[in-house]
Amino acid sequence: MGKVVTFGEIMLRLSTERHLRFSQANFFAASYGGGEFNVAVSLANYGIPTAFVTRLPDNEIGACALKEMRKFNVETTNVIYGGDRLGIYYLETGAGTRGSNVVYDRANSSMATIQKGAIDWKAVLKDATWFHWSGITPAISESAAQECLEAVKAAHELGITISSDLNYRSKLWQYGKSPKEVMPELLKYSNVILGDLDTAFFMLGQDKVNPNYQDEKSLPVLYDKLFEICPNLNTAATTLRYSISASHQQIGGVLYDGKRLLTADIKDVTPVVDRVGSGDAFMGGLIYGLVNDSNDKKRALDIAVAACCLKHTISGDINLTTLDEIEKLISGDASGKVSR
Amino acid sequence: MGKVVTFGEIMLRLSTERHLRFSQANFFAASYGGGEFNVAVSLANYGIPTAFVTRLPDNEIGACALKEMRKFNVETTNVIYGGDRLGIYYLETGAGTRGSNVVYDRANSSMATIQKGAIDWKAVLKDATWFHWSGITPAISESAAQECLEAVKAAHELGITISSDLNYRSKLWQYGKSPKEVMPELLKYSNVILGDLDTAFFMLGQDKVNPNYQDEKSLPVLYDKLFEICPNLNTAATTLRYSISASHQQIGGVLYDGKRLLTADIKDVTPVVDRVGSGDAFMGGLIYGLVNDSNDKKRALDIAVAACCLKHTISGDINLTTLDEIEKLISGDASGKVSR
Amino acid sequence: MGKVVTFGEIMLRLSTERHLRFSQANFFAASYGGGEFNVAVSLANYGIPTAFVTRLPDNEIGACALKEMRKFNVETTNVIYGGDRLGIYYLETGAGTRGSNVVYDRANSSMATIQKGAIDWKAVLKDATWFHWSGITPAISESAAQECLEAVKAAHELGITISSDLNYRSKLWQYGKSPKEVMPELLKYSNVILGDLDTAFFMLGQDKVNPNYQDEKSLPVLYDKLFEICPNLNTAATTLRYSISASHQQIGGVLYDGKRLLTADIKDVTPVVDRVGSGDAFMGGLIYGLVNDSNDKKRALDIAVAACCLKHTISGDINLTTLDEIEKLISGDASGKVSR
Amino acid sequence: MGKVVTFGEIMLRLSTERHLRFSQANFFAASYGGGEFNVAVSLANYGIPTAFVTRLPDNEIGACALKEMRKFNVETTNVIYGGDRLGIYYLETGAGTRGSNVVYDRANSSMATIQKGAIDWKAVLKDATWFHWSGITPAISESAAQECLEAVKAAHELGITISSDLNYRSKLWQYGKSPKEVMPELLKYSNVILGDLDTAFFMLGQDKVNPNYQDEKSLPVLYDKLFEICPNLNTAATTLRYSISASHQQIGGVLYDGKRLLTADIKDVTPVVDRVGSGDAFMGGLIYGLVNDSNDKKRALDIAVAACCLKHTISGDINLTTLDEIEKLISGDASGKVSR
Amino acid sequence: MGKVVTFGEIMLRLSTERHLRFSQANFFAASYGGGEFNVAVSLANYGIPTAFVTRLPDNEIGACALKEMRKFNVETTNVIYGGDRLGIYYLETGAGTRGSNVVYDRANSSMATIQKGAIDWKAVLKDATWFHWSGITPAISESAAQECLEAVKAAHELGITISSDLNYRSKLWQYGKSPKEVMPELLKYSNVILGDLDTAFFMLGQDKVNPNYQDEKSLPVLYDKLFEICPNLNTAATTLRYSISASHQQIGGVLYDGKRLLTADIKDVTPVVDRVGSGDAFMGGLIYGLVNDSNDKKRALDIAVAACCLKHTISGDINLTTLDEIEKLISGDASGKVSR
Amino acid sequence: MGKVVTFGEIMLRLSTERHLRFSQANFFAASYGGGEFNVAVSLANYGIPTAFVTRLPDNEIGACALKEMRKFNVETTNVIYGGDRLGIYYLETGAGTRGSNVVYDRANSSMATIQKGAIDWKAVLKDATWFHWSGITPAISESAAQECLEAVKAAHELGITISSDLNYRSKLWQYGKSPKEVMPELLKYSNVILGDLDTAFFMLGQDKVNPNYQDEKSLPVLYDKLFEICPNLNTAATTLRYSISASHQQIGGVLYDGKRLLTADIKDVTPVVDRVGSGDAFMGGLIYGLVNDSNDKKRALDIAVAACCLKHTISGDINLTTLDEIEKLISGDASGKVSR
Repeated sequence: MGKVVTFGEIMLRLSTERHLRFSQANFFAASYGGGEFNVAVSLANYGIPTAFVTRLPDNEIGACALKEMRKFNVETTNVIYGGDRLGIYYLETGAGTRGSNVVYDRANSSMATIQKGAIDWKAVLKDATWFHWSGITPAISESAAQECLEAVKAAHELGITISSDLNYRSKLWQYGKSPKEVMPELLKYSNVILGDLDTAFFMLGQDKVNPNYQDEKSLPVLYDKLFEICPNLNTAATTLRYSISASHQQIGGVLYDGKRLLTADIKDVTPVVDRVGSGDAFMGGLIYGLVNDSNDKKRALDIAVAACCLKHTISGDINLTTLDEIEKLISGDASGKVSR
Repeated sequence: MGKVVTFGEIMLRLSTERHLRFSQANFFAASYGGGEFNVAVSLANYGIPTAFVTRLPDNEIGACALKEMRKFNVETTNVIYGGDRLGIYYLETGAGTRGSNVVYDRANSSMATIQKGAIDWKAVLKDATWFHWSGITPAISESAAQECLEAVKAAHELGITISSDLNYRSKLWQYGKSPKEVMPELLKYSNVILGDLDTAFFMLGQDKVNPNYQDEKSLPVLYDKLFEICPNLNTAATTLRYSISASHQQIGGVLYDGKRLLTADIKDVTPVVDRVGSGDAFMGGLIYGLVNDSNDKKRALDIAVAACCLKHTISGDINLTTLDEIEKLISGDASGKVSR
Repeated sequence: MGKVVTFGEIMLRLSTERHLRFSQANFFAASYGGGEFNVAVSLANYGIPTAFVTRLPDNEIGACALKEMRKFNVETTNVIYGGDRLGIYYLETGAGTRGSNVVYDRANSSMATIQKGAIDWKAVLKDATWFHWSGITPAISESAAQECLEAVKAAHELGITISSDLNYRSKLWQYGKSPKEVMPELLKYSNVILGDLDTAFFMLGQDKVNPNYQDEKSLPVLYDKLFEICPNLNTAATTLRYSISASHQQIGGVLYDGKRLLTADIKDVTPVVDRVGSGDAFMGGLIYGLVNDSNDKKRALDIAVAACCLKHTISGDINLTTLDEIEKLISGDASGKVSR
Repeated sequence: MGKVVTFGEIMLRLSTERHLRFSQANFFAASYGGGEFNVAVSLANYGIPTAFVTRLPDNEIGACALKEMRKFNVETTNVIYGGDRLGIYYLETGAGTRGSNVVYDRANSSMATIQKGAIDWKAVLKDATWFHWSGITPAISESAAQECLEAVKAAHELGITISSDLNYRSKLWQYGKSPKEVMPELLKYSNVILGDLDTAFFMLGQDKVNPNYQDEKSLPVLYDKLFEICPNLNTAATTLRYSISASHQQIGGVLYDGKRLLTADIKDVTPVVDRVGSGDAFMGGLIYGLVNDSNDKKRALDIAVAACCLKHTISGDINLTTLDEIEKLISGDASGKVSR
Repeated sequence: MGKVVTFGEIMLRLSTERHLRFSQANFFAASYGGGEFNVAVSLANYGIPTAFVTRLPDNEIGACALKEMRKFNVETTNVIYGGDRLGIYYLETGAGTRGSNVVYDRANSSMATIQKGAIDWKAVLKDATWFHWSGITPAISESAAQECLEAVKAAHELGITISSDLNYRSKLWQYGKSPKEVMPELLKYSNVILGDLDTAFFMLGQDKVNPNYQDEKSLPVLYDKLFEICPNLNTAATTLRYSISASHQQIGGVLYDGKRLLTADIKDVTPVVDRVGSGDAFMGGLIYGLVNDSNDKKRALDIAVAACCLKHTISGDINLTTLDEIEKLISGDASGKVSR
Repeated sequence: MGKVVTFGEIMLRLSTERHLRFSQANFFAASYGGGEFNVAVSLANYGIPTAFVTRLPDNEIGACALKEMRKFNVETTNVIYGGDRLGIYYLETGAGTRGSNVVYDRANSSMATIQKGAIDWKAVLKDATWFHWSGITPAISESAAQECLEAVKAAHELGITISSDLNYRSKLWQYGKSPKEVMPELLKYSNVILGDLDTAFFMLGQDKVNPNYQDEKSLPVLYDKLFEICPNLNTAATTLRYSISASHQQIGGVLYDGKRLLTADIKDVTPVVDRVGSGDAFMGGLIYGLVNDSNDKKRALDIAVAACCLKHTISGDINLTTLDEIEKLISGDASGKVSR
């Protein structure tokens, strides 16, 4: 089985526990996460050989992030070192009517200051069959965006499948360029795109759209437009989320393969233990499904939705769900019985 | 902007965590709270200059309570010292079908042994525009009730708005007097009263009533009676609470201004992280609304209800909600989306 | 009032907190539990003199289990010592769509290696009026099954009421015998049996049945069959559980006394703090009800269901509910109001 | 073997951990202790049947204290109920040059408000061979002092050995009587007294003395005087403590039996995990030694000193040392090797 | 009494507990500290009106730092807002032969990006009698160094006493200037300087010296040189530290007033709970002593040394010692007896 | 650089924190350790490619142990799966005069039930240059001893250096054979042996010896005898430990290479954070030193002693010391200064 390579930033996550507000906390739970790393852990967890490529500071905090990658069986051979700091994000977990709150402190991180050409992508990707990146990397700095483009081009040249999670974060994109100046060039190599259609159109510099995910007629038209703009695309998918409250979500999914529009049933997710990384769990499930059987896209979508739901029950960014748990949920058993 | 002064007891709260029963706990979370202090923190939090007046023991535990006041920007200049102990309450937080349990150990506290005349109210209130007290202070001891009356009279003489939360606690009132012997004299100075109508009538020594808060006809009649008894009253409000379980509440509110009956929509609150202090959060929101615009009582009521709902998501007695969160909830967004 | 004696294994329970997965935990909460011990604590808690009989290793971990028994006022005079280890079970508490997970490590425990004749049952039971055992003991080893039979025979000879919880655990029964080879001999002495009808028929070596607990016609027919096979039986009961998710259960109960079919209303249980031991809480409530008034079986069933519901709100195996809380829930008050 | 009965107050201890100051703590470790209870646990721990007599509030916090007694196998049959609260003490554990700090909040406790005659001492002591009390009980209230006298007289009449720990606490004795008005009457029944000679002379209303515990000549003279005043006395002992710092103590002991002066070697105790209750550990060791062999007072003293030293390594008030550990330390092995 | 104003950076401190290495920690204790803030807390703690001036990010983490200032009664009126982040330092607390480890992540903090002229020093200092800064501020950025100079000049013009802690940190000073290019201009206004003589000479661009603090002859010569370079100097002091291990320090002090060389006795400090901030505790003690009696410099030195010793027993950067504890230690009582 | 392979058992360690006794703990810190695994982590930590070979149960607890290996960069490719359980040991950490206490619960573990031939040692060792085992493996079961012999023979045939830590544990060796029946055959292949001479002679079935490690004359004679019995031996070393208390050790070392007797200076180790695994840290340091320069045995011994000392400051079984810290300690700097 070929290897999946993901590329992005891993951060120290400092979160309060038991729904405490920042001002009530005298300690922070410390864990490590980041969109593309989270995808890598999902895949390693499902038994897929997976490598994560990033840039870490050569200090003890960077070493902690590295140990976390290793712990979850993510290959770290191509991690590079340099720069001054590991990016941080602070998380206050909400409940009920109060939403969670993220404070970013990731500027000037080792990953943000990566330089174009820092990584020998041809070497890194030589035994890979899949490359994954997300819209966060081009959002953190111009040089990171450039290096992301290097990666994408190399993957394309090597004939490797490329997946992209749009992951639009309005608090990023502070370095002087807007998504539409950067993303079209990057996305045109993508074979698989995850994200809302309106986000996709926005990032691609198109007119604003208001997709109705319940409308089986208008939706393919919009997706066809996306497939047109991204000539290598064969799969576009999106998570459907209906937020009842910070503690109650309803999760479904839609996938278009250029011809058919596939949907997955909406599932209730309550209580929400931790919703951060649930999109990455969807992405991880989708890649796993497609790697295992690229023809059964309905099953890939079902895995993605089930993984996304289960992630909401797990603390931290990374999805520690098992394939058994995913199967059980797909089969309709949400009973949560004790196994003994 | 004028200052709000609140007067009452602050206690050490010793609570079990993660729904543990007392007999399972080998530590107690330590925080500080009390009805009138909780109101003070709400107001300081919303940017209103606020002072809390109380009596603390001159020992390390009293010093901890003082530091908590300072931390949340509540002015402590008029705190007085003396007596033997900081009152305590033990709290076991329930879940689902099991209610929370409070064990009071507040007898003989420094506040309970305060003597009439201990505080120079004219000096304390000289730059204040609002004075707030609640039915807890006259319930803890005769001398506290007397000093509360001193405060109320001084505030009235100074032309300061007076708000009162009825806060009936049947486990208190142990010193030989019943509410109807004490409260009428106190409440007659009130401009704003918070509490159930039946509690109000009970405390005022009136015949028992069974208000129907859904009945827009009978309700004004009862309120008019209350306005008659309390000649200075211009606003009477109450929280509406429907308890589905210890983890699920439905919260609304009613306000009467002598002419109009205003209501706020019922909101679902689930899960309940901590319901203690939610009435004080309502009170804090109401005062804030009225201080900002005494004419827009509907908005004051909406703020009060939103603050009350949001308090249920926050551990501890005090309400650490922001005005932004209140606005968002008033606008109907209970989605709890992650802000990033 | 006569004494209740229960017999079985007590284990060290090592559980993760806050829904953490095993791989995320760097500590385990340590508590002690086991089906028959849990029943003993319920009864001691309700004021019934209760003794627990088991075999403990003569080491510090066994001593911890003994201290837990004492703490909850369970008589320990007839505990015997020997063998190498206290059995363990690891518990990862699920949430929402993710079920809890139990990993047993109880083989070769002191209780599993108990030998037939190790306990002088005539002496142990001399002042008892009730003996309780469950299907776990005959499932852990052949010698434990034999000693259980010794106990049951002695209790029967002494005319003591015998209750049995079927407690089928498929991960046990590893010593070469199947339930149908062992259980019929044991169950024939039972006066009270708790468990699903299909489990009962399976354990008794009968043809498979699919009881419909909503069908008041077919159900008595099946129960009559059970009463036929177990000649001493006067009460058969079962918990009804509908799992919406790991965090939401619906709980009811059915009891048959040879003539009448009694049912208890279904109650919503959400959130689930800890469902382990909820069946034992039902059993404890049932015994308590029958010990207090063996004629009012409807009340015994109501107590059992309320205790079972309330147990779901309590961490750990043992049910620390009070009779007041049970009464309140039976009366229909699930409001979870703060008592103060 | 006869039973030892101890009488006194048990309190909730609220302590900070890891040397935190009160103002840094957002939780308190909760444990239960009190001089005479601590002695009872020591003895129960060493296998002596032991009962503790006290008065508890009939609330959940009192119930926690009761469970702690049971956990450590202290008989609770003669505990009585009444009064309003369990006494509390707050503890901030020092280190190095900073001493520990105790804040008492024990006034008006259930034990302090016990009334003379509340306990039927003849019944309580009927199967006892030893009664122990300390100078704390007569220090907390006049009625407690009176009830203590009742106990002492009953024990004396029944011919039971009486031991007394002087336990002078200057922060107590607030009810209007001084030790010299109360203690002589109580101490005259004592067979065994633990405490400094200067404290003993002070409490007995004698002229101040400055005993030199290194001087084998002057010391017997002082002790003879004590034996003269207390006609039933056969053993007087004291702990010798040299405080290098809050983290380093040197511990020895002296015992006089009316004829011989016995001493135990000074041992280094560092680090000090928790010194509270180390005097009670000495007392428990002394009683154990004398109960086992009243003639070998040197061995009783050695046990007392070793128990006192070992207590310093144990968190909480109560001494959880084993007899094996005591033997090992008496034998001169302070090496702290891992047993495996 | 006049006010003391201190100026500098406050950081979030993320530390492991119980001597864990970074790679073992899954949470970090969160506290707030920084040299000049630590001095401010010491002084506020001793009853001196004290204000801290800094620049905070306008986000929730900055708000936490502000609450910490308020909690400890440090005036925050002149805190300004702006910039992107609160500086961080990670701390791994050593033990015995293993030293503590600090990882700085403070570049680009709100304080580091402060601009010259951001603070109206004349207004800030108008009711102050003392201004304190340290060598950390000019080390973090050029603009911070410039603003520090603005402050020093304003203080000098207003005739306010200026104290300076040299606080040399080799990991800082990364912006292109060396101490000798920046510090001489700043230090020339100082009335009080704290620091090693060799550090002072290094920062002032002088030839390297190797002061022998035991040599009462050569030392005054060196100090006279320092007084010559810094024309406003009237007091130079230094902590003497002899590190036996990370857990055992010996602390003394030296002070020179231009004429006399004063020394304080060396004290043993073991165990070391937390040594960070002990120099700031010395500084705080020194300022307190001089503010109270500028003539009794021996007493100021003794207070400084005692405060420094006691700080080692307290977790966190800030010194929470009381004046009573300082007095007790100065009097020679290091016994750490329990106060009860 | 060649690879080091170690072979043995990894256990779940359940330890109390803050010196709590087992009966005081309501949670256990969970970590993973075992003699040969601990050595592997040391080496991986120092940059040596290292693999650990063991047998794990195929359950979630085994998976946790595997993740711990990966986290610390120990190769896990040759781990095999089977059996029922991960072995456990309980640890109560002592202090001062109270020693730590270990309760083993490792019987019937997956490693203990490994069968001879389970591992293809030729394949496992093909790219290795060093093989390490210890006396624990042959002590846990006969089949484990047999498989250990298979490993040793294969290593010997492949010409790989073999090191052995005697690691005598009297609580093991329960399967019917004594060390002298098993160890001579195993040890005769050893090139490097770590352990006391008396243990070595005991295990080899020789007459008892009482080596005096301070006597440079008699010691070589004894070592020569050992070299005679073990024909492949080129290095024998032992840790010297002088236990002042559980919190204070003095550590040195002796090494004999067949000709010269080398010693390392005794170092003070206080406080002891955790002494478990300190012998493994010595072994890891020794192997590292010899792998780097097999001729400089003095340096290898110095590294071993420094690593052993530093391990005492680190919680858990595994040694997380850096080479920099070892160098610093060898250079004589035990000052524990903060690095910043």
